[in-house]
This record gives sequence, C-alpha cells and structure tokens, in this order.
Amino acid sequence: MLLKSNDGNDFPIELEDVISPDQKVRFRRQIEFMLEIDKLKKVLRKTILLDRSRRENSAEHSWHIALSVLILSEYAKDPDVDLFRVMKILLVHDLIEIDAGDTYCYDDQGRRDQARREKKAADRIFNLLPADQAATFRELWDEFEEKKTSESRYANALDRLQPFLHNYFTDGQIWQENNINSAQVKARMQPVNDGAPMLWKYVSSLIDDGVKKGFLAE
Amino acid sequence: MLLKSNDGNDFPIELEDVISPDQKVRFRRQIEFMLEIDKLKKVLRKTILLDRSRRENSAEHSWHIALSVLILSEYAKDPDVDLFRVMKILLVHDLIEIDAGDTYCYDDQGRRDQARREKKAADRIFNLLPADQAATFRELWDEFEEKKTSESRYANALDRLQPFLHNYFTDGQIWQENNINSAQVKARMQPVNDGAPMLWKYVSSLIDDGVKKGFLAE
Repeated sequence: MLLKSNDGNDFPIELEDVISPDQKVRFRRQIEFMLEIDKLKKVLRKTILLDRSRRENSAEHSWHIALSVLILSEYAKDPDVDLFRVMKILLVHDLIEIDAGDTYCYDDQGRRDQARREKKAADRIFNLLPADQAATFRELWDEFEEKKTSESRYANALDRLQPFLHNYFTDGQIWQENNINSAQVKARMQPVNDGAPMLWKYVSSLIDDGVKKGFLAE
Repeated sequence: MLLKSNDGNDFPIELEDVISPDQKVRFRRQIEFMLEIDKLKKVLRKTILLDRSRRENSAEHSWHIALSVLILSEYAKDPDVDLFRVMKILLVHDLIEIDAGDTYCYDDQGRRDQARREKKAADRIFNLLPADQAATFRELWDEFEEKKTSESRYANALDRLQPFLHNYFTDGQIWQENNINSAQVKARMQPVNDGAPMLWKYVSSLIDDGVKKGFLAE
C-alpha cells in the first residue's frame, strides 16, 4: 500500500510537487480514514430491511436517515434548524460502532457500559483524522449524544423514526422476537417528540395500532 | 398499513387535529417515499468491501461518499463549493438504481441504454414525493448527471474515487476479474481531475502502481 509507512517516504513521488511534507501526512490520514470507515458496513443492527431479507447495517441506516433530513424537514420542531448540520451529525453519529458495535436499545445489560465503550471508540476513530477534522467530527458526535441543540434533537428524532417504521411495517417481527411492549417503545420514541412533535403523533398512533394488531405487547 | 389507502381515510385519526387534508396526502407520500428508498440497500454494485467479504450496495456507497465530502473538502477544485449541496446530490444520486440497477462502468452493452433506463426510473421514483420535493430531488439528480456546476463536479469526483480506492486496496480483484486495463481506468477517473485535481494526481499514481503490481493490465 502506498499509504502504509509512517514517515511518508513511500508516498507517490509525483505528489511532491503539489503537496508539502505536512500536507502529505494530513492526506495520508484522510485516506486511511476513508478506508477505515468502510467497516461500518459490517456492523449489523437489530432492524431488518422492509422485505425482511436481512438485518440492516449501520452505514446504510446512516444514509437512510441523512436523506430523511430533507424528506421530513418541515416537521422539525425548530423551523430554523440548520439542515446541513443535522445531515453531518447523522452521517457521523454511528462511526463509533466500528469499535463499540450496535447496542440493541432494549438490551439493558449491553446498555450498562455502552457510554464507556462508545467514548473509547470515539477517542480512537475520530483521532485517525488530522487534529482539526478530528475535533470537528467529535463535536458532531458529542452534539448528537447530548441532545441539547435543535439540530441534535431533530437528528435524534430521525434516528429513532426510521427503525421504528421498519419495525411497524414488518408487522413488528423484531418486537415480537424480543418480547417488546408498547411502553418500552413509547419511552424509546420520546426523542421523536422532542425533535419533531408531529412525527411523534404519527408514531404514537402506529404504536397503538401495533398493539391492536398484535405486533407489540400491551 | 395505515398508509395504504389512496383517499387517506385510514390515516391516524388523532392527526386530524394537527394536519389539514392536503397535508395528510403530502405526509403519506413522504412516508411512502421513506419506505420505498429502503430498496436501494438491495442494489449491489461491482465494488467489493475492503475485507473482500461481499459486494457493496448502493445505499452504503452513498453514505461513504456523502461523508467523504467533509473528509476531502480541501481538495475540491472550487474552494467556494457549496458542501451542503454536494452532500444532498450524493445522497440522492443513486436512487434511480432502485429501478435501473447499477450499471457496471465498463459494461458497454449495459451502458448503451443506461440513460434511457435511468431517466424512466427518475420519472417514477422522484414523483413518489410531493411535487415540490420531487422537483428538488430531480434537480439534484440532473445536476449530478450534467456535471456543469462546481458542486456536481466535486460530487462526481468523490463518486469515482471511493470505488477506485476499494479496487486498488483489494489488489485490483474486480479489475482482474473483468480484464480491465489502465487506459480504461484512467478514462473512467477523468471526473476526479475535473472536480478535485490533487486527488487525480493521487489516483493517477495509484493506477501506475497498480500496473506495476499486476492489479491492472497495462
């Protein structure tokens, strides 16, 4: 690999004319980050695709919700929310799962040390980037986790909504396999209310309907 | 499904208070679009993951390149390029593959009617959305295809770079399986030069190195 050495000596020679030694190290880190994040495609979530053929991975989930930023923008609680920032938050927010894995939201055991595992992952993964970019990516992730800004609240709403739709529109297959009840789902979906109240009303009605149809325990 | 009827009569009753009849139809179309685009996760590309375990799908590819907008922004030819627009273009650009499939870039047969197939797909898929959003999405796709703006040029550069990196860093497995030569790859990678000249220099040096290492025919 042209990017393997630490001192940069095997970097393509023809780039020497257009790139300084400092930039060379910077560029190597960016390319290595590009290669590293490919691993998010191997992190499987509990959610299944709508055709029920397989579990969803975290990279395609991130794409789905980043696009939903545009599709559902009019339902964001704050009409002045910065959609570009929401999109960036969502593209970045699951990268820590490369090390920490996806923790099922109703797995109380796994959730006990989730924060510690994810922080450790963030420390490693974002710091593969040059320092300024590492800081930017880390801020986006911290913002998502803290849920204090309009942008992170809308982002969290979309992150909860998409797997919920998959669960409902596959007749609650994953809910049933894991004996999930409506109170658990309602609690889990509160961020939808915080970030997009109209969508919460919709979610709430589907939960009630799911109980009626037997997708979910009462 | 609560969203199945065309006249909207089975829409959740509690939403009647917060949503007008017109908005109801609009919201249904948005949710149905959310469900439809899940199918992009089933569209397989020629590219393989870096661990060579399987082919990549178009949804996770879209995520990877949308995130690369940020990682590699300093190499965009136009320093004033609108990164939000590039990101939107890349999140949307492959949706037409839900109907048209992914056409291998060196498949001359498949490429003959590619434009016709993709236009037909765009007409159907984007028009699932409410008219104003359908127009917005279509504009993003048209812009990507026409390659006239700084944003679409940078977007096209990233769309070509990522699978190229996968090919090079898997020792050209897919190139070899398909008897691809360096002239074909160089021609295919020209959009990288148009949208991000520094990245093109890097790509160009990797192509030469790939020939030397036997990943690619001369």
